[in-house]
Amino acid sequence: MASDYGIVIHGGAGTILKEKMTPEREVQYREKLTASLRTGYDILENGGKALDAVQAAVKVMEDSPLFNAGKGAVFTNDGKNEQDACIMDGRTLNSGAVAGVRQIKNPIDLARAVMDKSEHILLAAEGAEAFAKLHGIEFADADYFYTEERWKQLQAAKYKEKMTQTDYSQLDHSDDKHGTVGAVALDRHGDLAAATSSGGMTNKKFGRLGDSLIVGAGNYANNRTCAVSGTGHGEYFITGVVSYDVSALMEYRGLSVEQAADMVVHEKLGRLGGTGGLIAIDRAGNFAMPFNTPGMYRGHLLKRQAPVVMIFQE
Amino acid sequence: MASDYGIVIHGGAGTILKEKMTPEREVQYREKLTASLRTGYDILENGGKALDAVQAAVKVMEDSPLFNAGKGAVFTNDGKNEQDACIMDGRTLNSGAVAGVRQIKNPIDLARAVMDKSEHILLAAEGAEAFAKLHGIEFADADYFYTEERWKQLQAAKYKEKMTQTDYSQLDHSDDKHGTVGAVALDRHGDLAAATSSGGMTNKKFGRLGDSLIVGAGNYANNRTCAVSGTGHGEYFITGVVSYDVSALMEYRGLSVEQAADMVVHEKLGRLGGTGGLIAIDRAGNFAMPFNTPGMYRGHLLKRQAPVVMIFQE
Repeated sequence: MASDYGIVIHGGAGTILKEKMTPEREVQYREKLTASLRTGYDILENGGKALDAVQAAVKVMEDSPLFNAGKGAVFTNDGKNEQDACIMDGRTLNSGAVAGVRQIKNPIDLARAVMDKSEHILLAAEGAEAFAKLHGIEFADADYFYTEERWKQLQAAKYKEKMTQTDYSQLDHSDDKHGTVGAVALDRHGDLAAATSSGGMTNKKFGRLGDSLIVGAGNYANNRTCAVSGTGHGEYFITGVVSYDVSALMEYRGLSVEQAADMVVHEKLGRLGGTGGLIAIDRAGNFAMPFNTPGMYRGHLLKRQAPVVMIFQE
Repeated sequence: MASDYGIVIHGGAGTILKEKMTPEREVQYREKLTASLRTGYDILENGGKALDAVQAAVKVMEDSPLFNAGKGAVFTNDGKNEQDACIMDGRTLNSGAVAGVRQIKNPIDLARAVMDKSEHILLAAEGAEAFAKLHGIEFADADYFYTEERWKQLQAAKYKEKMTQTDYSQLDHSDDKHGTVGAVALDRHGDLAAATSSGGMTNKKFGRLGDSLIVGAGNYANNRTCAVSGTGHGEYFITGVVSYDVSALMEYRGLSVEQAADMVVHEKLGRLGGTGGLIAIDRAGNFAMPFNTPGMYRGHLLKRQAPVVMIFQE
């Protein structure tokens, strides 16, 4: 299925079951994923950069309450939102990332500004927001990030924690660990890029940071190999250095992007006990979207093909 | 030089020149590096765990004003200290890390507590300190972290910034990017571990985080391959996924630890334009300490050998 340009996206992996999904909600997801694909693809078709395409595609998902990133970010234990994002340019290996930002409307835009306008890669929390102010990045207040569904998820988590007298972080809550959005793209110039944005984990405490902000863990791009964005239980993606591992298996073992992505998700991640998935694309437009959860919101749109959007195992 | 147990440490790489070093200061460094080695080695010799050895060895350097970690951490732009640390167990692949903590006497102890007592890997800033309080980790106030030398370095950096009307982050300050301490060890049970702690960058702003806290960038351990701790210009270590790359070259290409470490530092890091060094040890006790800067504080102490401490190219 090689192509000379195209984009692949995900909107999170987890316990997404057909029997729990209403037809209306499924339509909403499919429409938003398609809109994200088309936004990124239009940039590619017009000769734009993969970097701009992945940023724009992620932004569409950040602006929707459906995904755990941007507008739809989950609440921390103290009723705030703390978001992470990372973007990487496969041509230059430049990257930018932000950790634990609370008031940024589109964390992926701030990650891009860090990449373009700072000599650093990773800026955190208030410091990252001070940088955002200097560079005219759009802020949003608590009202913007409030969604009734996410608030209920926080209350449910707190109730469960209280009833079981157990630190919530010790409870099973595999679902709400899996909401991350991401995009990988190949442009007409032959360049790759990857972008990932995450709203974190419901009821999280202690300033926990996940894999989405970490180059090589949740996000990686390198023209020598591939562009990768991950979604899943972040701790396992950090331990497995998952995104870079796909690249290393291609570079050092000569595996194809499909072989490398499958090995990392179905063998290595599984062996660690980790759940989730990833999307990856190489410079020939070959791509993979493996996951080991019941579902992963995902889609691809390659040169002169129709957009394809999927949610469940199929 | 294979051995069935031993420890290798570094105290930072950078523009460390023999002509700029007083004999008294050189003695201080050599003594402290030797003390760090002996502390870790004693644990190994008594049948203790590599994990405990690297933590204890790093702690000795954190407690000294000579190194940019713990007591000797450099000042941020607002006159505070923000420290990062990471520890990883090569047997289980468990790890713990903290980012941007300000009041923790020994950040490596907190990283260890995150590893042992949390289901998360990475905790940041105030959240990490709240976790520290719950788990009885020792705090230290601003007086403890104040050292005249580091304060002067901050004033000099600010003066330079003012005089040149340039954001300090854009100026050349390659020296103060290179202060990190780390240890890697092999224990009698055949297990590997790595620990890294960093005081960050003089005059840093915007909550910049470096590579030391990132599994696979500045710190990595895996019994299948090796344990690695890096020191240098952190952004390049993040871009190169340097610590995991040593492991990947061993696992996927079959390189020895010396070959893999040399290739990563002398070829790959250099190609990116990055400066620094790393230490690495494998399960046979083979080790490497490559760096591409004028000097790196470093040493090794292997089973029944004398401690060896080095500073310059030699």
